[in-house]
Amino acid sequence: MLQAPPAEPGMREEEVDTPALLLDLDAFEANLDLMAARLAGTGAKLRAHAKTHKSAVIAQQQMRRGAVGQCVQKVAEAEALAWGGVPDILVSNQVVDPRKLRRLAALSGIAKVAVCADDAAGIDTIAAVAEAAGRRMEVLVEIDVGAGRCGVSPGPEAVALAERIAASPNLIFGGLQAYHGSAQHKRGIEERRAAIAGAAEGVRRTVEQLTQRGLPCPIIGGAGTGTYELELEQGLWTEIQAGSYAFMDADYAANGEPPAFRQSLFVLSQVMSAPRDGMAVLDAGHKAVAIDSGLPLVWERPGVRYTGASDEHGALTVEGGARPKLGERLRLVPGHCDPTVDRYDWYVGVRKGRVECLWPVSARGGMA
Amino acid sequence: MLQAPPAEPGMREEEVDTPALLLDLDAFEANLDLMAARLAGTGAKLRAHAKTHKSAVIAQQQMRRGAVGQCVQKVAEAEALAWGGVPDILVSNQVVDPRKLRRLAALSGIAKVAVCADDAAGIDTIAAVAEAAGRRMEVLVEIDVGAGRCGVSPGPEAVALAERIAASPNLIFGGLQAYHGSAQHKRGIEERRAAIAGAAEGVRRTVEQLTQRGLPCPIIGGAGTGTYELELEQGLWTEIQAGSYAFMDADYAANGEPPAFRQSLFVLSQVMSAPRDGMAVLDAGHKAVAIDSGLPLVWERPGVRYTGASDEHGALTVEGGARPKLGERLRLVPGHCDPTVDRYDWYVGVRKGRVECLWPVSARGGMA
Repeated sequence: MLQAPPAEPGMREEEVDTPALLLDLDAFEANLDLMAARLAGTGAKLRAHAKTHKSAVIAQQQMRRGAVGQCVQKVAEAEALAWGGVPDILVSNQVVDPRKLRRLAALSGIAKVAVCADDAAGIDTIAAVAEAAGRRMEVLVEIDVGAGRCGVSPGPEAVALAERIAASPNLIFGGLQAYHGSAQHKRGIEERRAAIAGAAEGVRRTVEQLTQRGLPCPIIGGAGTGTYELELEQGLWTEIQAGSYAFMDADYAANGEPPAFRQSLFVLSQVMSAPRDGMAVLDAGHKAVAIDSGLPLVWERPGVRYTGASDEHGALTVEGGARPKLGERLRLVPGHCDPTVDRYDWYVGVRKGRVECLWPVSARGGMA
Repeated sequence: MLQAPPAEPGMREEEVDTPALLLDLDAFEANLDLMAARLAGTGAKLRAHAKTHKSAVIAQQQMRRGAVGQCVQKVAEAEALAWGGVPDILVSNQVVDPRKLRRLAALSGIAKVAVCADDAAGIDTIAAVAEAAGRRMEVLVEIDVGAGRCGVSPGPEAVALAERIAASPNLIFGGLQAYHGSAQHKRGIEERRAAIAGAAEGVRRTVEQLTQRGLPCPIIGGAGTGTYELELEQGLWTEIQAGSYAFMDADYAANGEPPAFRQSLFVLSQVMSAPRDGMAVLDAGHKAVAIDSGLPLVWERPGVRYTGASDEHGALTVEGGARPKLGERLRLVPGHCDPTVDRYDWYVGVRKGRVECLWPVSARGGMA
């Protein structure tokens, strides 16, 4: 079920088997450097989100540039990172199942591990598992700062949960998880600024109330690629959980202003059929490139558009430009990087037209 | 990168780790039996499409009930099936890359393997690879019978390709691939009937012209779960390539009349957050259940709807019914079965509330 790598180091890009997940290493490293430079001297550190890259290799490169650790959404992702040497991992999500919590507790023998909660019974379950495992587990309270998904309301509800954590001998109150997911994709900077200002108000109020109860907040985590500069402006967040900045995608590129980060992630695909003028068919459909946030873009081929995805086929419409030839390889910019990465077992790292490295997507399919 | 199985035989369904790909074995076996019964006595055989199930175990069960073999879309799928003992495999798709074709030729040592073509240069590439490998390869000509994707026009264009195949000492002309994909999902039976009547006209004309040239058509392949009875009415197709009938999904269930096949495939998910009235959050977002053909349905929970999918979260809206509790497990009916299966490493087979078996999704991620 693990797929064979589609390339070998030294190959030319045109020789890579398709579909393949391509990482332009120059652009990728520039993105990592740029984020490190932007956070330097601010009060905030990067805790990069591994839900995007699912790779211990990439996590290590982010940490060598100053990231304090990694976020994940799933216990299986935490395992893949810890087994790959990542020493500090936050599950930026609720884990309520005792079996999953036991796996997380076991992991805390080789890495610092924290988890989020938004429910009193959920906290009690974590405490019981921690006690049985003979560990103290760090727990953050998730507050809903506008996304309307997980998290309790800022203020008294959050304070009550924090006190419940602090009162448990097996738990440590780690701080607040305050992520405004839907703000990442609002199309204008002022819309995003207003959303994050609203989030900041809830964070500020909750921190004040926690302080009054004698509960300090070591971590205030949140922010993503689309808004992190706005969280920095607020001066509240201590950890920035951006992930997509390393890769970028068509959805982030549509956010309005010229993006500071470069497109580094591509799906390499091949023309497998071209029976009529004005069209061609690629070997990459939506099993190969996620379409939940829109269709992929064709990279640097004017007049050639990706206009339809079925399971294994990508339909190209050709207007004005030269029709791609049978067997020709085209780069696609995924509409959404995270779920696209999750469809592959291997990154193919390329530089100046040559394959330089293969990295495993070590948490591929890690949903549990 | 291979995920651990989420269950063990003998477990109760409520103990299965989530998200998990659940197969209701009673419904699944009833579907396989029903398709076998419907094809018995017709001139057509089932060549079930393994793009749906990606499993040699399921392929074997279909063949024990009379299927002549399996279809796949990708060489990696053909490999997984051949390695799992499937003796007769058709790649119902173009393969134009010489490296992929060499893998296919190598496979023909352990299974009967055929492939499709819709281009003269593509046929010459297959012939060259077959010659170098010392094999004769069977090639079908794909004709476009209305889907507007791959395939040449019915009639002279198809005949010219068939003659090119027949003229090569290293190739065998296997027949016609005539699949009308988009017809599967037209919502009314009469719309589907009209589409398949149009497809049949193209097939009939092409077969007549081939016969005039002395080229018999051993295989006329096509049809899917949404239309196969209409292809049977036409009396032309010799092989029915249905796949989804084994599982079904919300998209097929929306086709208009009560579906003959039962829902056997589910994603089992868990409530991980329920911070406010009227809502809850599941641990299955679109990394866990495909949403390209619509959101999943919640199984047998009146008043509870799945109303939003992000990467790792599924938003439930609760109106009227009882709000699902934290930690509770819910079955989801995927919007689209094929890409949902491709996200998992394991089927969890259940019967009467107990886990009976674990089967690997052996071609999971097999895109090449």
